Amino acid sequence: MISQENSSGTPSVEAAPPKRPTRAQPVTLRQVAEAAGVSTATVSLIVNKKKDARISAATRNRVRDAIRDLGYRPNAMAQTLVSGSSRFIGLVADAIATTPFAGQIIHGAQDEAWKHGYALLIANTEGNSELETDAISMMLEYKVRGILYSTWFHRATDIPAPLREADFVLVNCFSTEPGTRAVVPDEVQGGRSATEVLLKHGHRRIAFINATIPAPAKDGRLEGYREALEAAGIDFDPSLVLEAYPDQEGGYGATEELLKRDVTAVYCYNDRMAMGLYDGLREHGLSIPEDIAVVGFDNQEVIAAHLRPPLSTVSLPHYELGAAGVRMLLGLEDAPETAAKIYCPTVERTSVQALAPA
Amino acid sequence: MISQENSSGTPSVEAAPPKRPTRAQPVTLRQVAEAAGVSTATVSLIVNKKKDARISAATRNRVRDAIRDLGYRPNAMAQTLVSGSSRFIGLVADAIATTPFAGQIIHGAQDEAWKHGYALLIANTEGNSELETDAISMMLEYKVRGILYSTWFHRATDIPAPLREADFVLVNCFSTEPGTRAVVPDEVQGGRSATEVLLKHGHRRIAFINATIPAPAKDGRLEGYREALEAAGIDFDPSLVLEAYPDQEGGYGATEELLKRDVTAVYCYNDRMAMGLYDGLREHGLSIPEDIAVVGFDNQEVIAAHLRPPLSTVSLPHYELGAAGVRMLLGLEDAPETAAKIYCPTVERTSVQALAPA
Repeated sequence: MISQENSSGTPSVEAAPPKRPTRAQPVTLRQVAEAAGVSTATVSLIVNKKKDARISAATRNRVRDAIRDLGYRPNAMAQTLVSGSSRFIGLVADAIATTPFAGQIIHGAQDEAWKHGYALLIANTEGNSELETDAISMMLEYKVRGILYSTWFHRATDIPAPLREADFVLVNCFSTEPGTRAVVPDEVQGGRSATEVLLKHGHRRIAFINATIPAPAKDGRLEGYREALEAAGIDFDPSLVLEAYPDQEGGYGATEELLKRDVTAVYCYNDRMAMGLYDGLREHGLSIPEDIAVVGFDNQEVIAAHLRPPLSTVSLPHYELGAAGVRMLLGLEDAPETAAKIYCPTVERTSVQALAPA
Repeated sequence: MISQENSSGTPSVEAAPPKRPTRAQPVTLRQVAEAAGVSTATVSLIVNKKKDARISAATRNRVRDAIRDLGYRPNAMAQTLVSGSSRFIGLVADAIATTPFAGQIIHGAQDEAWKHGYALLIANTEGNSELETDAISMMLEYKVRGILYSTWFHRATDIPAPLREADFVLVNCFSTEPGTRAVVPDEVQGGRSATEVLLKHGHRRIAFINATIPAPAKDGRLEGYREALEAAGIDFDPSLVLEAYPDQEGGYGATEELLKRDVTAVYCYNDRMAMGLYDGLREHGLSIPEDIAVVGFDNQEVIAAHLRPPLSTVSLPHYELGAAGVRMLLGLEDAPETAAKIYCPTVERTSVQALAPA
């Protein structure tokens, strides 16, 4: 505020024009040394947490006070050179941060990392292999504690060459190279659980609409369906397994074929497929769950809980995958010889009801 | 593979047990110097791209060959100490990477950064202010070129104290402090565009289901609706503005009230609301777009394009927000005094048709 006298002699006040906020000048190590009355070498020893009997407790406190009062920010790169490793864990992902599906992997990894004093630095590559190489290289150059390498859907992956220079764990993907540490969802158990939701409500003629596109989930979820039927003493009938593209249009398009099968229940490869099937069944005048019970898979946010009726489904444990990846990286969890499998919990809503007695 | 003679004297081969892949030992600067026949000081000057007339082109080439052949990875932290800034741009976000909505902000920021030789390092904080402070601090300590600070939905934000030490731009959020650089969606223009889709198809009695929760989007989209009506010579009728929670359940619950209004078209605050309204209208035996035209907002992945019929909507330009944020940070784009507003494009699908002549 600028104070000026106006023509009548009374001070008037003019507001100074608003300024763009300026960036503060960083405090230097020398300024801390001067404030504490010690040498820069002494400050450096204290900042780098070196034990030195010649530095008294009083001196240490004086230096720490100066650091705090001045707002000194140590040069972390120098510290890392000293300690050998930074406080980062890297996460390199193809499209987890950008596709609306597996973001909870990041959430779980970040929470677990934070518990152990690390923060996650994420590079989202969209499958650009040059960017991927560059991101991994930069994480190595900045001495990350380790790298999680992750894909937005469960699949096999090659191991990029620069990744081999790091401690790394594959998250939501796996390698055929023996001994590679990895965590993936337990697709077979998930397929079993989805089928069991229907079995426990008394359904016995249960269709499964599988995905057309090859994936570990495609094989695993089918295997789980078959295991659950077998455990319930029901013969596997291949004509009850259909295939459709794993989205709403695929599910909608499968309706006609499904209705020829005369089933009382259907398990869909994923929630998006179930959403499309809902539309198809409705167009045929059928009600869920009264006429047909429906189970999905994924527990996809903004879909499963919001269908009408809300969809019973099996959750992909993205959060737990991220957390387990960090624990494995930090050696807090053993890594089995093949990928560790994470349990997929069931979420029961209202798209399934007991089969009415015949 | 271990070759041994068996009892009959014929060599037999046993496979060695599979080994866990080992991490390669990093190549040192000294090894490069030895391979190239120069001093470590010379290698250091070349790695740090220092001009020095005493180093011949032949020597430079020999050193570069040695670097390439040995796979030497320079210590980027030492380089950063020399150059003053790293090749990172930081992105600090509350929940962009983890919620299935605004991930394209990351995609746009990453692509734009990459064009200019930077990679994005993302910290996803979930609103944890301690993690946020720590992430910003670490990015500063590692000398990022600058920081994008972003929120998963458009809102006002405080500026965290450590952020002020960096070059920063707010993305999808804004500050009331004058001169703070920010990019946000143009909500008013978006609201206008949504209403114009209906107007151009001949609709004049148009309802707007706004959100109950306060947000720049709530005020902006209503203002746009009003502006579009006024430009078309239609009096604003406040009874045609309803409010509901901005998700499927809110849209579904608003159906009864909407149907009392005798309109031919409805513009919903967002696609999730429209999805619920679809269910409500269907339960009343109404067809979209034949009985009522529906427009949404967001162009939310996995929803808008997959409703039946596919939903006409206005896109939130998340990708462009991220890209513009990077350009503004790098000084490639001027920052206006208030937040820069990014255009929201219309996506016309099949939930709107011309009003049948009376």
